[in-house]
Amino acid sequence: MNFEFKPIGMIRSCYTDKFGIPRQPGLVKSATATLEMLPPFNQPEAFRGLEEFSHVWISFVFHQSASNAPLSQGSGVTGWKATVRPPRLGGNERVGVFASRSNFRPNPIGLSVVELLEVNGTELRLGGGDFLDQTPVLDIKPYIPYSDSIPDATGAFAAAPPRPGNTVSFLPEIEQKLKTLETEARPNLRQLICDMLSFNPRPAYQRDNPDRLYGTTVFDLEVRWKQIGTDVTVVAIK
Amino acid sequence: MNFEFKPIGMIRSCYTDKFGIPRQPGLVKSATATLEMLPPFNQPEAFRGLEEFSHVWISFVFHQSASNAPLSQGSGVTGWKATVRPPRLGGNERVGVFASRSNFRPNPIGLSVVELLEVNGTELRLGGGDFLDQTPVLDIKPYIPYSDSIPDATGAFAAAPPRPGNTVSFLPEIEQKLKTLETEARPNLRQLICDMLSFNPRPAYQRDNPDRLYGTTVFDLEVRWKQIGTDVTVVAIK
Repeated sequence: MNFEFKPIGMIRSCYTDKFGIPRQPGLVKSATATLEMLPPFNQPEAFRGLEEFSHVWISFVFHQSASNAPLSQGSGVTGWKATVRPPRLGGNERVGVFASRSNFRPNPIGLSVVELLEVNGTELRLGGGDFLDQTPVLDIKPYIPYSDSIPDATGAFAAAPPRPGNTVSFLPEIEQKLKTLETEARPNLRQLICDMLSFNPRPAYQRDNPDRLYGTTVFDLEVRWKQIGTDVTVVAIK
Repeated sequence: MNFEFKPIGMIRSCYTDKFGIPRQPGLVKSATATLEMLPPFNQPEAFRGLEEFSHVWISFVFHQSASNAPLSQGSGVTGWKATVRPPRLGGNERVGVFASRSNFRPNPIGLSVVELLEVNGTELRLGGGDFLDQTPVLDIKPYIPYSDSIPDATGAFAAAPPRPGNTVSFLPEIEQKLKTLETEARPNLRQLICDMLSFNPRPAYQRDNPDRLYGTTVFDLEVRWKQIGTDVTVVAIK
């Protein structure tokens, strides 16, 4: 017997491309997102008291994985892999999918704890998320410290957070451009790009190539950079 | 657009009745549960490396709520309430459903962090769960302390754990009977009953009545008790 769930809301996020999204929430503090509720769930009273919690859990659908996989058509078997290669292990070692947070799961459900910055009617402003723009949301739950926070839990290969190992710089003309591009609709733009790229989105197996151009999108902007070792230089934004 | 998910496994739990289940995982340490995977998800390699984590997140379906509500038939509107009365507030005050962990949610998805006691092939032994027996499981994720543990999060009315306020005693013949009933199939039976009833499952609005008999089931046993103030006496087990 299968279960059918409805999206209750939708995320609007600065991350408009999967490439470069931090691998866990909370790593890039400059990332903000907005959760907009969909009818009939857009009732302000459903959030009464939520503003007293500092953090919330968001259960969401890995929608790009879900639409690639035929899960939503009910097959439920393809689209997942019993083992995956976590980036944290250099992309070489395989672990079981249930020992990872990979999106290639039997049910492509994601789970992130984020800071609750503001409840504005039925719109939540969230801090530090790792959501792709337009992510469908299944549930919102308050973070309950006495049951959810287990500081002495042991975490195997994921015990320590990934460290921001890259140094990020911008070409002079990009620095200039950023001053006009950073608007209310694109808050913390420069800091956000620095933070994202400092976490080294480059696949672990790739060697240095001074000509190789990497790219992703942030908000409505295309960002292009080059990388030699841990030195990242942003060369274009449009 | 709705999403369809498959149960990947099933919980076998000591809690065979909703009444008396602790309101969060981790409160009753003597509770254990087993997660048995369903085909085609019962592949041992899907758990490779999981044994190195001390805790896991279980996403599950509130199946008793789900079958009451017509959610699984796709309506998605009934079966949830915009506001609920959390037992922690004495059952009088209403908060928004998203400010609670109530099971009357738009999507009846539950989320519990539990201790991972043992990985035995494709069977997980879990400690401290709050699962009803036969709960369908949607996902298993490792608990990642650096992102999931936020000790300084603030939790409003749920900031402090409920305290085990009741004193639990057993009639002499029940004490005798427990010695034969506590078997490998019913581990920690006496301790489990003590722990469950110490958390006061009685509805907050009920006054003392020396004749009133309360009952629930634990494993395959019916348990009956009386309560005056915070004194609970177990009077029957069969």
